[in-house]
Amino acid sequence: MCRFLLYKSNSPILLADLLTRPAHSIIMQSFNCKLRLDMRRPMNGDGFGIGWFDEPRTQGCIFTSTLPAWSNTNLQRLAEKIKSALVFAHVRATTGDTATSESNCHPWQFGNLMWMHNGSIGGFERIKRRLQNELRDEIYLSIQGTTDSEHAFALFLNMLDSPATRVEFSHEELRQAMLATIAQLNQWLDEAGVEETSLLNFAVTDGQCVVCTRYITSADLDGASLFYSSGSEFKSEADSGQYRMVKANRREDVVVVASEPLTYERSDWLTIPNNTLLVITPRLNVHLHPIRDKYWNPRRRQLAC
Amino acid sequence: MCRFLLYKSNSPILLADLLTRPAHSIIMQSFNCKLRLDMRRPMNGDGFGIGWFDEPRTQGCIFTSTLPAWSNTNLQRLAEKIKSALVFAHVRATTGDTATSESNCHPWQFGNLMWMHNGSIGGFERIKRRLQNELRDEIYLSIQGTTDSEHAFALFLNMLDSPATRVEFSHEELRQAMLATIAQLNQWLDEAGVEETSLLNFAVTDGQCVVCTRYITSADLDGASLFYSSGSEFKSEADSGQYRMVKANRREDVVVVASEPLTYERSDWLTIPNNTLLVITPRLNVHLHPIRDKYWNPRRRQLAC
Amino acid sequence: MCRFLLYKSNSPILLADLLTRPAHSIIMQSFNCKLRLDMRRPMNGDGFGIGWFDEPRTQGCIFTSTLPAWSNTNLQRLAEKIKSALVFAHVRATTGDTATSESNCHPWQFGNLMWMHNGSIGGFERIKRRLQNELRDEIYLSIQGTTDSEHAFALFLNMLDSPATRVEFSHEELRQAMLATIAQLNQWLDEAGVEETSLLNFAVTDGQCVVCTRYITSADLDGASLFYSSGSEFKSEADSGQYRMVKANRREDVVVVASEPLTYERSDWLTIPNNTLLVITPRLNVHLHPIRDKYWNPRRRQLAC
Amino acid sequence: MCRFLLYKSNSPILLADLLTRPAHSIIMQSFNCKLRLDMRRPMNGDGFGIGWFDEPRTQGCIFTSTLPAWSNTNLQRLAEKIKSALVFAHVRATTGDTATSESNCHPWQFGNLMWMHNGSIGGFERIKRRLQNELRDEIYLSIQGTTDSEHAFALFLNMLDSPATRVEFSHEELRQAMLATIAQLNQWLDEAGVEETSLLNFAVTDGQCVVCTRYITSADLDGASLFYSSGSEFKSEADSGQYRMVKANRREDVVVVASEPLTYERSDWLTIPNNTLLVITPRLNVHLHPIRDKYWNPRRRQLAC
Repeated sequence: MCRFLLYKSNSPILLADLLTRPAHSIIMQSFNCKLRLDMRRPMNGDGFGIGWFDEPRTQGCIFTSTLPAWSNTNLQRLAEKIKSALVFAHVRATTGDTATSESNCHPWQFGNLMWMHNGSIGGFERIKRRLQNELRDEIYLSIQGTTDSEHAFALFLNMLDSPATRVEFSHEELRQAMLATIAQLNQWLDEAGVEETSLLNFAVTDGQCVVCTRYITSADLDGASLFYSSGSEFKSEADSGQYRMVKANRREDVVVVASEPLTYERSDWLTIPNNTLLVITPRLNVHLHPIRDKYWNPRRRQLAC
Repeated sequence: MCRFLLYKSNSPILLADLLTRPAHSIIMQSFNCKLRLDMRRPMNGDGFGIGWFDEPRTQGCIFTSTLPAWSNTNLQRLAEKIKSALVFAHVRATTGDTATSESNCHPWQFGNLMWMHNGSIGGFERIKRRLQNELRDEIYLSIQGTTDSEHAFALFLNMLDSPATRVEFSHEELRQAMLATIAQLNQWLDEAGVEETSLLNFAVTDGQCVVCTRYITSADLDGASLFYSSGSEFKSEADSGQYRMVKANRREDVVVVASEPLTYERSDWLTIPNNTLLVITPRLNVHLHPIRDKYWNPRRRQLAC
Repeated sequence: MCRFLLYKSNSPILLADLLTRPAHSIIMQSFNCKLRLDMRRPMNGDGFGIGWFDEPRTQGCIFTSTLPAWSNTNLQRLAEKIKSALVFAHVRATTGDTATSESNCHPWQFGNLMWMHNGSIGGFERIKRRLQNELRDEIYLSIQGTTDSEHAFALFLNMLDSPATRVEFSHEELRQAMLATIAQLNQWLDEAGVEETSLLNFAVTDGQCVVCTRYITSADLDGASLFYSSGSEFKSEADSGQYRMVKANRREDVVVVASEPLTYERSDWLTIPNNTLLVITPRLNVHLHPIRDKYWNPRRRQLAC
Repeated sequence: MCRFLLYKSNSPILLADLLTRPAHSIIMQSFNCKLRLDMRRPMNGDGFGIGWFDEPRTQGCIFTSTLPAWSNTNLQRLAEKIKSALVFAHVRATTGDTATSESNCHPWQFGNLMWMHNGSIGGFERIKRRLQNELRDEIYLSIQGTTDSEHAFALFLNMLDSPATRVEFSHEELRQAMLATIAQLNQWLDEAGVEETSLLNFAVTDGQCVVCTRYITSADLDGASLFYSSGSEFKSEADSGQYRMVKANRREDVVVVASEPLTYERSDWLTIPNNTLLVITPRLNVHLHPIRDKYWNPRRRQLAC
């Protein structure tokens, strides 16, 4: 089971304050995960990736490694220097027979778009060929690895006009492409008779807005966990390693979405309901949209976390 | 430009005597190549792989690394311990945008078959989708990387019955599958209007016999170099690091095929002509077969090496 | 907290049957350790190493990697091919600021001797210079990394005559050198006023006999766990991934020492008492020797495991 | 033989314009070195490192890798984003038995000081212990690797007061410490009777000024090559990959020092004479100081380059 984190704010944060210094950072989660669905491979030590944007309307930067995040000295040093107002971070546990290689590390980018995924597409091998055949050449040929996650990104890109060259996208457009991606996957999985459950926590950004989902192909089960928090600043309480989401005023200057809470203050965090799409606009407004397809079930009981 | 080496003998050789100790080993070639077609990326430092069989009718073993061969201490140590009578070795220089990852290191194996390639398929991206669509599912889904070389292996496997489970193959069958693979690639490249030249030095083994090619999709140009040598023993002259192919009697106990001569004794080595298929039978007989397709040209002038 | 395993038998075992196939192998332990002293860094994902001997009176072979063991395809493949009757295996969690590098992976070898360590020397930095100054040049200059563990090996070597060139050692000699090493460390730590506790589970072999310790610099606390098991064969029950120590007759054909039991059958395993030295003779006799220094305490209460 | 490059300017340069885009960048040099003393290991593929400062009076950042620079996708991506006005870069070829590990990659930093070395200390193993014993504890314990180069840095640090905590240093102080380091090495090498030649091209910075040397322990031989160039801007001529040092006015806004010229315009580059120390002041003045010790020889014939 992987983990991801995305951060968007009005002013840049030092990556160390988000990734390496918090006592319950995504990197510490990589060996101390409390909220897991899948205990067979409980640890996220099969590589990680970080993506960030330094200015709007440009391609982001990505740093990936197959070494575990917690022992990566380059990550430790870069995080002390790089600031960004829009960050994606992902730690990975390989699933099935997928190789550990940098090509298989999240996030991926294509043009100005960046993508990551927490979960897996059940029975992916049974729809892989069909998915690839649907892709336009420039997208098909851009695939560097073998994961279901990168292929889902390719399918998403295929829903957009000119993803390689466009500088920005409306959040409405990204939202529709995300919904179309999930709908298309569902259709193919159904037609292939796949019965395994898929966990589709996707996140995508064009450097300006963010669209992400908490989604499971089941009307009963609980999807992979996803939380968000917002406030005026994400910062450390003294030098304790304990971070808090400070809510100094009513403005939202910071939004964080994460597979697990990054702070010990549980009230900082709201659970994103199952089968919900979340949008963060360029101005940091957050909208939750239920995904009302056949797996929508408002009476589904959320597991306590 | 990559380099490969294959070794087959009646009795096992210590890998060190083949790979790490010879002064002009394939590993030294990785930074001192004299016979190159492509000078833009002259160095083979983008990973390497070694495959070997310890007993007939079993799957071989593969060791790959994205670290350069010459500084790989695991390779140095393993080579001092492992003996084998059938060895494939490959050093790699990335071409184009192909990622450096272990998934992209030669050789590959599937069931008992092992494959490596020196060269590249010109315009591969224009036939990739068609090639993938031709593959049976078990082969299509086994692909772990993005290289033209691994896809050529997949196409070769697709020419065979039950490649995943069969223990051995006749050299005649492997030879026909190799020819069919090259013919199929040529047909697709033609139909796609590809004009780039392909260099198709392939090698395959089932652990018993070996089939390899020196091939170029041109009737005029010279393909990537390929040499072979045979004798009674491949061994060091004292501790000089200078190795020789000893010809103590008329029997052939050792056959080596390599992109460049492994010894400084030029007379030890015969040039394999362009567009020729070479078979090494289980009993170490060597047969050369011209590949008489539209690129066959007996008057082609071999470049002096 | 690291983990180690050593295996000695009359006939070679396939490394896979020891390392990668058992459901509770040392590699699975690397992310599912139940018996830990130190919960701050609970996971052994900072590299691993395997050492083995293929024939007596020769130097062993070592394979190390800074990638986690569980995702290392080279390890998976080699383990399916290599057989050995004397194996050391170690998974590592970095402690303090020690870098993750192959130079810091256990085991190490020097001449025919091989060494690994589970634990740490408390306050090592305060005796490091003194230790280095005690070493003979050939040993001092052989140190490749920065760990306390490799330096403890160097000190051990310094207790022996001609460790670089001798082919074998009596187990009595290795035992005395081990005791002298621990005594010397204790003396220096005392003189430096170090109060941190040291955990000194060391293992050494010359390829014929094995000497290892469970030791803690405390008369009250419990040292890092260490168990052993012996029998006629270590093998799988059907294809379940569940391994057992089979005791088919009264002969001891296999001895395993490990930080944690490798099988779920708890009765297969005996706890090695704190501050005890264990010897496995070339003929597979096992002797336990209490280490009766100032930390010896027969009334120390063993923690239940 | 390694290679290094240092860049200091009034305004930040994109690292890509210095490291990855120039046709004759230090990375291309890593496999196409024309000016070499040592042809036995002609290639710099054993790792690289980059250090840069983003603002004065703070510690710099370092990115190192044991993968070759030319195939490192993280380097490619980071270089497209990071800007700096003070950059150190180093590509490495291992010498002797020194392990390829990130701990052995240049540059190193300690407090605000950053160091790299091109060359080697002949007979280093014969003075290593004496050097280590001379070091103050905080410096001795900071050593992470095994190279002569890192130990030379340690000796340099030992010449300074409070190197761990001071924010800046005068260039006069760094110059004196550099000369003292070389003098001390020479004295120890002499006393140890070492006859091998040492190549001591060192570079150090505190983030404000730079001191570097071209030095050889011989009055006759030519040291490892070192060049410098200055001008108003280091930039590309169109998109050719050909870079030039533009001299638009008489001000010096950019100074580059490099083992080999970075541009094809030979007249851009001045050879730094053997046994000379070069200072770049915070205001970008460049001073050359002959090192007038026993190896000083004004009549030494420079090899043409």
